[in-house]
Amino acid sequence: MTRQNPYSLDLDKNAANHVALSPLSFIERAALVYPDRPALSYNGRTQDWRTTYDRCRRLASALARHGIAPGDTVAAMLPNVPAMFEAHFGVPMSGAVLNTLNTRLDAAAIAFMLQHGEARVLLTDREFSPVIEQALSILGDTAPLVIEVEDEAAPGGARLGEISYEEFLSSGDPEYVWQLPADEWDAIALNYTSGTTGDPKGVVTHHRGAYLNAVNNVVAWSLPNHPIYLWTLPMFHCNGWCFPWTMALVAGTSVCLRRVDPAVVWSLVREQRVTHLCGAPIVYSMLINAPEEQRAGIGRPLNGLIAGAAPPAAVIAGCEAAGISLTHVYGLTEVYGPAAVCAKQEGWEQMPAEERARLNGRQGVAYPLQQAMAVLDPQTMKPVPADGETIGEIFFRGNVVMKGYLKNPHATSQAFAGGWFHTGDLAVVHPDGYVKIKDRSKDIIISGGENISSLEVEDVLHRHPAVLSAAVVALPDPKWGEVPCAFVELKPNRDVAELELIEFCRTQMAHFKVPKRMIFGELPKTSTGKIQKFELRARIKSAHAICSGPQKLDRS
Amino acid sequence: MTRQNPYSLDLDKNAANHVALSPLSFIERAALVYPDRPALSYNGRTQDWRTTYDRCRRLASALARHGIAPGDTVAAMLPNVPAMFEAHFGVPMSGAVLNTLNTRLDAAAIAFMLQHGEARVLLTDREFSPVIEQALSILGDTAPLVIEVEDEAAPGGARLGEISYEEFLSSGDPEYVWQLPADEWDAIALNYTSGTTGDPKGVVTHHRGAYLNAVNNVVAWSLPNHPIYLWTLPMFHCNGWCFPWTMALVAGTSVCLRRVDPAVVWSLVREQRVTHLCGAPIVYSMLINAPEEQRAGIGRPLNGLIAGAAPPAAVIAGCEAAGISLTHVYGLTEVYGPAAVCAKQEGWEQMPAEERARLNGRQGVAYPLQQAMAVLDPQTMKPVPADGETIGEIFFRGNVVMKGYLKNPHATSQAFAGGWFHTGDLAVVHPDGYVKIKDRSKDIIISGGENISSLEVEDVLHRHPAVLSAAVVALPDPKWGEVPCAFVELKPNRDVAELELIEFCRTQMAHFKVPKRMIFGELPKTSTGKIQKFELRARIKSAHAICSGPQKLDRS
Repeated sequence: MTRQNPYSLDLDKNAANHVALSPLSFIERAALVYPDRPALSYNGRTQDWRTTYDRCRRLASALARHGIAPGDTVAAMLPNVPAMFEAHFGVPMSGAVLNTLNTRLDAAAIAFMLQHGEARVLLTDREFSPVIEQALSILGDTAPLVIEVEDEAAPGGARLGEISYEEFLSSGDPEYVWQLPADEWDAIALNYTSGTTGDPKGVVTHHRGAYLNAVNNVVAWSLPNHPIYLWTLPMFHCNGWCFPWTMALVAGTSVCLRRVDPAVVWSLVREQRVTHLCGAPIVYSMLINAPEEQRAGIGRPLNGLIAGAAPPAAVIAGCEAAGISLTHVYGLTEVYGPAAVCAKQEGWEQMPAEERARLNGRQGVAYPLQQAMAVLDPQTMKPVPADGETIGEIFFRGNVVMKGYLKNPHATSQAFAGGWFHTGDLAVVHPDGYVKIKDRSKDIIISGGENISSLEVEDVLHRHPAVLSAAVVALPDPKWGEVPCAFVELKPNRDVAELELIEFCRTQMAHFKVPKRMIFGELPKTSTGKIQKFELRARIKSAHAICSGPQKLDRS
Repeated sequence: MTRQNPYSLDLDKNAANHVALSPLSFIERAALVYPDRPALSYNGRTQDWRTTYDRCRRLASALARHGIAPGDTVAAMLPNVPAMFEAHFGVPMSGAVLNTLNTRLDAAAIAFMLQHGEARVLLTDREFSPVIEQALSILGDTAPLVIEVEDEAAPGGARLGEISYEEFLSSGDPEYVWQLPADEWDAIALNYTSGTTGDPKGVVTHHRGAYLNAVNNVVAWSLPNHPIYLWTLPMFHCNGWCFPWTMALVAGTSVCLRRVDPAVVWSLVREQRVTHLCGAPIVYSMLINAPEEQRAGIGRPLNGLIAGAAPPAAVIAGCEAAGISLTHVYGLTEVYGPAAVCAKQEGWEQMPAEERARLNGRQGVAYPLQQAMAVLDPQTMKPVPADGETIGEIFFRGNVVMKGYLKNPHATSQAFAGGWFHTGDLAVVHPDGYVKIKDRSKDIIISGGENISSLEVEDVLHRHPAVLSAAVVALPDPKWGEVPCAFVELKPNRDVAELELIEFCRTQMAHFKVPKRMIFGELPKTSTGKIQKFELRARIKSAHAICSGPQKLDRS
C-alpha cells in the first residue's frame, strides 16, 4: 500500500500561487514603481517607463488587431534603436515570437530566415533597405507586412514599409490588457545562429529561460538598481543577452546607439553617465585604443561584460588601465547568451597584471541560475579531470537552455543527446574548477600529430604591442599536415615585420605552435565582433588552390 | 481547422533544458565556486562552503538511511546555530520537508505541531529541553526520533536526544548523491503561523517559491556577492525570510547567534565586519537604544531589512542616525516572508527626516519577483482608488505564495478565494502606488462609529522621546463602544506621566483617536519581536470582567 503524501493533498496550483514566469512581468512593475524614470535615451531624447510600457502595449494591441496571435512570428531588422527595445516587450505581449535578424546578413540569408520562421510582420530600418528590398523580392507573395521604423539618424535608403512604426503604434491601445503566456514554456524569441556551414538554425527560446537569465544578469554582475546601460552589444545577438528584460527588472536606462564608433561611445559614456555595457573583445579593443582625448573626463567606474570570443590578455589589461572593470562571461545563442561567468575570487586583485589577465580570461563557472556547466569526454560523457590539461567538450544543462531548433528535430536531438546541451567548444578544467576554452573543435590545428590551440597562439600575438587583433587558422602543409597561419590586424600607425613577429612568438611558445605565415590586413568580423575564421579559411583555400595545388596533389 | 503552432512541435522539455527550480542548487554552486570562503561563523569558529555542503549531504544521507523519504517531515527546535542553517539544505536534500518550530512556544503548541505535521525526526537544543520533554510526553508513542544539537554555548538543560547531531552526521555520507525534487511544486518547508485563535495553521511552501524568493532578496536589496549577514532574525520565522538560501546564492557568510542581545550584536557587527541583517522593529529599537560605547567603532555602513510590524518613524530616524541603512519590507509566512518592499525613489534622500520616515515607513510595492500586490475591496475584489484614504485589504498573487495549509482544505480555499491570497491586512494606496497598512482587520478600533487605526496612534506615541515601544488596542467603552487604550514601554531611565503623554497625543491627532488610558510596563512580545496584542487584549478583558463587568451589563 502506498503511503499518502500529506504535502500533495489539496495543495494544488491555483491562480493565486502559480503564474507563468515571463520577463514581460518586469516592465509592468517598472512602469508601476518607477513610471517617471528614464527607460530609454537616444539622440538627445529620453523616454520614461510609463511611456515605454504604454508604447509596448500599443505595439501588442496593434499586432493583435492585425491578426497576430500566439505562435506567429514578428521579425525585426533593426539597429539598437528604441523600437528594437520596445519590440522585446510588445511582440511577446501579443503572444507572438520575436525574431531579431542580424543586420549584417545578405538578402539570401534574410529571405531564408523570414521564410523559415514564417514571419508575418517585419520591422525594418531604412539603413537596411537595399538588403530587405532584395529579400522581399525573393519571398514574393509570402512577404510579411513591413513596418518601417523611422529614425532621423538613419542613413538614406528607400522607404519600404507599408506603414510607419509610429502610425502602427497609433492604431494600438496603450491600455491594452495583454496576457502572460499560457505556459512559461511557450516560445518568446527565435534567433538564427550564423552557422558557417549549411542553413542557419533557428534557436527557439522560452519565457521561463528568458525570465531566469534576465535575473541571472543581475545576480552574476551584482547589478544595482537603475544602471545606465549603453547598448554596445547588438540586441539582435541572443536578444542582447537578455539585457532588455534585465533593464526592466532593475529599472535601468538603456542608452541606444546605431553603431559602435569609439568617439561616439566615449562621448555617450561621459554625457549619459554610463555605468554598464556589454560587448565582444573587439568593442573593448576599439575603446581602449581610441585616442586619449576621446577618453578624457570619465570620472566614474565603467563596468563591462565581455564575451563572444575569449578575451585576449592584452584587452583585459588594457581595460583595467582604462578604468573599465571587466567581467568575462561565456555562452551561446542556445543558452540565451551568457551561461558562464569567470566569477572573481578574493586575492585575484593582488596578483600581477599578467596573472590577473590569465585568471579572468577563463570562461569560468556556470552562471548563478544556470544549473550546470561541465567539460565531458563527448564519447563517454564522463567529466575530464580538473588538471588544466585534458581537453573535453563543454556541456550545459538547466533552465536557461533553448527549447530546440525550429523545424529541425534532427539537430535538436543531436544538440541534446545524453541530456546535456552540446556546445561544440573544447576546453579544459583547471584545478580550481574554472573552465578554459581551448578551441572550437574545428579551430584545433593538428600539426604533426600535435594539437595546437589557435586561441593560445592568438593570445601570444595579442601581447605584441603593435597587434590590434589576430586570428590563427590551419594552413595545409605537405610535411606537417597543418601548420598555424596568422592573420594580423595592426594598430593604427604601428608596424611590425613578419619575421619579427614570428621571432616574438618563438620566445613565448613551443616552436611547433608558432605560425609559419603572418598575413597583415584588416580582419573580417561579424556584426558582433567575432572574427570570421571561416572567411580566413576560405581565403587560404582559394590561395592554396592557386599556388599550392600541384604540390598538395603529389604530396612532395 | 486549427493551425499548427510551429513553436510547439518537437520542442519538448528534456533533461538538458528543464530542471526543477530549487534553492538546494545554490549550495552546490557555492561549494563548487567558493569552497574555501566562510559559510558560517559561530562562537569564534568559521566553516567554509565545502565543509558546509559536505555536512548537509551527510545530514541528508543519514536521514535517508533512517528511512526518511519525500513527504516526511523533519522538525527543528533550534536557535540560530549552524545546525539550523544546515537543516535548511540537508533536510530537503533528503526529500523531506523542514518544519522549523518557534522556540518561544509552550509544550502544548509544540506537541500539536509535531503531531499535526507528523514529524518523524526532531532536531533540538538543550535550552528547550523542558518544553520538548513535556511535548514528547504528550506525544507518547508517536514521538519522533530526537537528535540533540550539542552546543557548548547552550544554557543547561536535560539531554533529551537519542543521538547527538554530530553522531548522526557521522553516520551519513559526505558524497551522498542527493536528488532535486521530482517537481519544483514539491513541498520544501512547513511553518506554523502563530494564530491568535484556534489551532495554528501549517503553511506549506514549495521549492519553486523558495528559489524565487531567495533570488528576490538579492534583487530587492541589491545584495552584492559575499555579504556578512548577521542572524538577528530567527531562522524559524518563515525560514529566515529565505535568507539561508539567499546566502548560498551569493556565497555570503552567516554569522550565527543564539539570542539578540544588543551588546553581543554590536560586538559581532564590529568584529565580524557585518554588512547586512534583518529583523523586526524591536531589534533595531534595541540596537539604537544601546549605550553609546557598545555602538562605537562601526566603521562601515550596515544594511538592514526591517519588517514584522510597521516600523515606527522614530526607529527609522534613529537607525539613520546610527548609520543603519534600512529598507522596509512586508510580508507574511504564507508568502515566504518579504513579499513587498518600500522601494526607494530618487529624491527621498533630500527630504526632511520626518518625511523620509513617512515615505520609508510604507509597505510599498510588490517584491521584484512577486507577481502582484493589490489593495482590493474584499467584497467586490475591485482595487481601491490610490487616494491614500480608502481602506481595502492587501492581496498577493504570484509564484512566491504557499501551496496552502496542511490538512486544512477549508482554510486553504478561504485564503485563495477569488484567485488572490488574502492577507487580512487593511491598507490604503497612496497616489504614487505605494501601499500603507492601516491595520489588521482586528486591530481597527471603532469608536463612536469612527475607525481608528491603532498603528497611527502608536506612531504618534513613538515620537515621544521617553517611549521605547507602544501598542494600542480597543478598550470597551459604554459610551463609544470602543476607545483606544495604550500599553507603553518606556526607555530605561526615562519617565513620563500618563496625563502628559495623553496631552502629547492631543497635540498630534484628532482627539477621538487619543488613548483614554496609558498603561506602563514591559510589552509582551513574540520571539520575532512582534508585540502580542492578543495578550494585551486578554489583559483588558480580564481586568474589565473584574472592574467594569457590572457597568457593562447595565450599559450606564
